[in-house]
Amino acid sequence: MLLAATGPLRVLGLQVELLAGQTEANLARAEALIRANPGHRLYVLPELSSHGYCDEVLSQLDPTRPERPAQDAESGSVTAFFCRLARDVDAHISYGFLRDAGAGRTCICQAVVDPRGQLVLAYDKMHLCDMGDCSEIAHGCSPGEGELGVFECDGVRVGVTICYDLRFPELYRALAWDAGCDLILHPAAFVRDATFPMYHQQFVATRAVENGVYLLSVSYAGERFGSSVACPPWIGDVPGLAAPLAAASLGTAEGVLPLVVEPRHLEAVRRAYPYRRDVHPRLRAPPAQGDRRLQREKSGR
Amino acid sequence: MLLAATGPLRVLGLQVELLAGQTEANLARAEALIRANPGHRLYVLPELSSHGYCDEVLSQLDPTRPERPAQDAESGSVTAFFCRLARDVDAHISYGFLRDAGAGRTCICQAVVDPRGQLVLAYDKMHLCDMGDCSEIAHGCSPGEGELGVFECDGVRVGVTICYDLRFPELYRALAWDAGCDLILHPAAFVRDATFPMYHQQFVATRAVENGVYLLSVSYAGERFGSSVACPPWIGDVPGLAAPLAAASLGTAEGVLPLVVEPRHLEAVRRAYPYRRDVHPRLRAPPAQGDRRLQREKSGR
Repeated sequence: MLLAATGPLRVLGLQVELLAGQTEANLARAEALIRANPGHRLYVLPELSSHGYCDEVLSQLDPTRPERPAQDAESGSVTAFFCRLARDVDAHISYGFLRDAGAGRTCICQAVVDPRGQLVLAYDKMHLCDMGDCSEIAHGCSPGEGELGVFECDGVRVGVTICYDLRFPELYRALAWDAGCDLILHPAAFVRDATFPMYHQQFVATRAVENGVYLLSVSYAGERFGSSVACPPWIGDVPGLAAPLAAASLGTAEGVLPLVVEPRHLEAVRRAYPYRRDVHPRLRAPPAQGDRRLQREKSGR
Repeated sequence: MLLAATGPLRVLGLQVELLAGQTEANLARAEALIRANPGHRLYVLPELSSHGYCDEVLSQLDPTRPERPAQDAESGSVTAFFCRLARDVDAHISYGFLRDAGAGRTCICQAVVDPRGQLVLAYDKMHLCDMGDCSEIAHGCSPGEGELGVFECDGVRVGVTICYDLRFPELYRALAWDAGCDLILHPAAFVRDATFPMYHQQFVATRAVENGVYLLSVSYAGERFGSSVACPPWIGDVPGLAAPLAAASLGTAEGVLPLVVEPRHLEAVRRAYPYRRDVHPRLRAPPAQGDRRLQREKSGR
């Protein structure tokens, strides 16, 4: 399906409270927020939204412990829950959980179910954070093997990244340019430390603008987290658009953050600020699907 | 030569006034500022510093016009001037000019001369800006053919980029990781438009931090330009260092901006925030020279 056939895509970030290790309560909270905010085509929860991102959860990865929370992406109870809910609300839902990857490996996974109630993506976090207070590797997590996280939502190609992935520009290039994504999700559990105010918002804006894509970064509510960001592919004036494009963000309270993917904004930004055309051919081949789709969209109007 | 053998490298950015098309006056102004600020090992001038970056200069590229300012990197009068000056002040100098690349091609070049008075680098800008008021291609400029700009200064590997190059993360990765640069220069003529306050400083900080390198961005003085930035490889607290690392910047007046490359800061940042180790092997091979040099430095202490 082409962007032209779809019109704007309405997406909602859910900045939920973290209930440490209380999987059923986390699922119920996500459902309540989704049902209270109908009319969106894609709902996005933070990193490990089903269990909560915290030491109490990560320290249970030891496979000899009976309460080990990791589960299978296809057959686990978390996916079953969201499959039912997605069918019921007629939308895509993206949620996080610890994935049992077999052979003793546990991955930090962000999955997507579609309105038919089917699992369409299970992306394993490629870059694990292992510095400061954040020791995913020390807790026993394994990095994803490098499969990109890409799915289609009403004709829009959507990429998925998780938290620390944001620091690595080549992943966003691969999603935006090679895989033709126009929206990239960034579920996170970005702890509000001394570096947070600068790095979180700045890196989100840079990744969106340098790639000409929408970016939705969704974290937990609470004093330690917050500041989920919805970023357009440019911030400021764009020739041909009546109003400047602006990023939006939340505070630390629980809440929702809407983002609307507007094909006509994407097209205006890429025409006015042609980064996607201007990259030097010695460094990277020009993007394939993304711009081709926009061309087809233009010619079809 | 290894970083360990050198100690800190003192670099100075020169935010000079733009004198449109007055090459001799621009050279004299650069010399006066350099002589007024002795004791640095590398002086850095903005993009096209010898002619001034403006339509008046770029519009003269038409090869049929007698006053065409482009010249050869090896034998031109601008290089001859800086070779004499660099020998005299015993330092490296990096300056900009329009390079006659033969066959009717003119490139936006940033060159470097060393304290022996020899030309050691002539980097042709890879990414030409051709949007909004900035139409380098329309004026007849040609992009560089993709040779990276790298030179050694007292044992530190230094990369060179020019203005619009900043928008393309793969160039900074190639310089920092593949070519092992610890400092990247960014001579610019970044016009102070509506997007300037956000993009200039934000992109400089992101490129420095995501690659773990020092970055020195040098623009012209004046109400339309300014805000040259000296950025360390991290902004904020670094375990093992007594004081947080901070970026510094200038206003719009003519002035100088010091940056000190501290091997011990580089090492502390890369140990505390191991982005250079953590990139996923499916996306990029780990950096070669840069970290190897730091290892040799550590073992030599």
